[in-house]
Amino acid sequence: MKIAYLGPKNTFTEKIAKELFPKEELVPLIPIRSVIMTVENDEVEMGIVPLENFYNGYVIQTLDSLTKCKKTKIFAEKPLKIIHCLGKIDETRKITKIFSKDQALEQCEEYIFKNFPDSELVSTASTSEAAKIVSTSSDKTLAAISQESALKENSLKVIDKDLCPNNITRFIILKKEESKKTGDDKTILAIHPPIKDRPGVLADCLNIFGSLHINLESIYSRPDGKGGYTFYIELNGHKEDENVKIALKSLNISLNQYKKSDGAIKILGSFSNSHWKDEN
Amino acid sequence: MKIAYLGPKNTFTEKIAKELFPKEELVPLIPIRSVIMTVENDEVEMGIVPLENFYNGYVIQTLDSLTKCKKTKIFAEKPLKIIHCLGKIDETRKITKIFSKDQALEQCEEYIFKNFPDSELVSTASTSEAAKIVSTSSDKTLAAISQESALKENSLKVIDKDLCPNNITRFIILKKEESKKTGDDKTILAIHPPIKDRPGVLADCLNIFGSLHINLESIYSRPDGKGGYTFYIELNGHKEDENVKIALKSLNISLNQYKKSDGAIKILGSFSNSHWKDEN
Repeated sequence: MKIAYLGPKNTFTEKIAKELFPKEELVPLIPIRSVIMTVENDEVEMGIVPLENFYNGYVIQTLDSLTKCKKTKIFAEKPLKIIHCLGKIDETRKITKIFSKDQALEQCEEYIFKNFPDSELVSTASTSEAAKIVSTSSDKTLAAISQESALKENSLKVIDKDLCPNNITRFIILKKEESKKTGDDKTILAIHPPIKDRPGVLADCLNIFGSLHINLESIYSRPDGKGGYTFYIELNGHKEDENVKIALKSLNISLNQYKKSDGAIKILGSFSNSHWKDEN
Repeated sequence: MKIAYLGPKNTFTEKIAKELFPKEELVPLIPIRSVIMTVENDEVEMGIVPLENFYNGYVIQTLDSLTKCKKTKIFAEKPLKIIHCLGKIDETRKITKIFSKDQALEQCEEYIFKNFPDSELVSTASTSEAAKIVSTSSDKTLAAISQESALKENSLKVIDKDLCPNNITRFIILKKEESKKTGDDKTILAIHPPIKDRPGVLADCLNIFGSLHINLESIYSRPDGKGGYTFYIELNGHKEDENVKIALKSLNISLNQYKKSDGAIKILGSFSNSHWKDEN
């Protein structure tokens, strides 16, 4: 079986892909849209992309690309603890510059502020590149934030481990197949209301969920570039659950009373709840 | 006057900082938190950071860091059109690899898919680094996505201009001073409900805004790492507008009926509405 994942190699996405599918043919692709489109176009059986990081929030490209698909759905979600470590040529704690990918520097900013407030931060293309730069420099006061394995491969000493608590990325597995109801599921919806900027349109939607005792895990609105919005809603329940079914029917009626328009609600997937945020 | 902005130099943040404050002393800092904290700690008078990009969504570090501040507020917002161009050593359209910063590659993915579907994409630390890599290679089939000025500085030919439509980043100016009411304002709130996961808590909030005819521009929920959530809400109106004042009072009562707790609602700023999304 062929499975595409967000490349390049030696990233956390590859790590989770190998963990989940050790025996399958794994194909690294960039950017996210390529991974999703190869699933949609039947070039691979599954795709693996990040959906959200605890510190950096939703990966918009994943949500936006998935909304454009006709058949590809979220089949499962899988959280991965992201453990960043600080490495140096020697074991001293004298540091003038810290190299890493910008997202990793942002995730670790609390740690950096507390421990090395005067160090200069330098962005690199990837965390493994940061390790390489530090290991090939003659300046012993440089440090890199990277995975422990990358630091060790570049013969760097690990100064501190796990620099940011709660740092989890949740990945999703995409497939042209729907996941069965388990009794503890979640559903992600993309709602594109036909009426622009109507005050309270979102409240109408949320009232329907509230009155049916459907808990919302998260909500995110995005401009559609035409003066309107798409709301991404993540709710507890499977689309085959009775209350979710009724909510979706009510929502359709509520959204379409103003104008006949289909496709205002799109289900990006119903799948087993990993409770990724509770693991912290 | 000293003004901090998100560095490094030669970025879009520096561009807008120079446009807005050509005569002031501009200090590049990374990461975002440093910029915000130097304003909070009185080391500079103002700070400039990105808040949202049309393609990449909210900059979470800006929202999260600002929520932790006691005195720093959003004083103004300023949209900037981000114009990415494609550059090469020669003018032929034969391209094997495209280099750029990952965010820029993501913003341009529609263009790349349409025009160079078979090219390999390579992430670099910055868009200007991409231009440098392409200009110093002997391989004429490499291309870089970068600002036009960076392509020209590296003696590259501009093959295509403005690769992604609607690509606007809105920057915010931070200050320890509140912006006056203009009659066409917006307010950003961070709401941290004291009750975890209560179904419908968000709907209650939104009903208050809906019934007072306050339009919501956007909404974003973030896990707080303790099983709860923070909702970021952007609404039309100034905190000194009569209906917004009443809404905020109602919200406080609604949120605090379950538990005596202050600080459930934080105003990140009330400022003149730039209508940045309407400019597209």
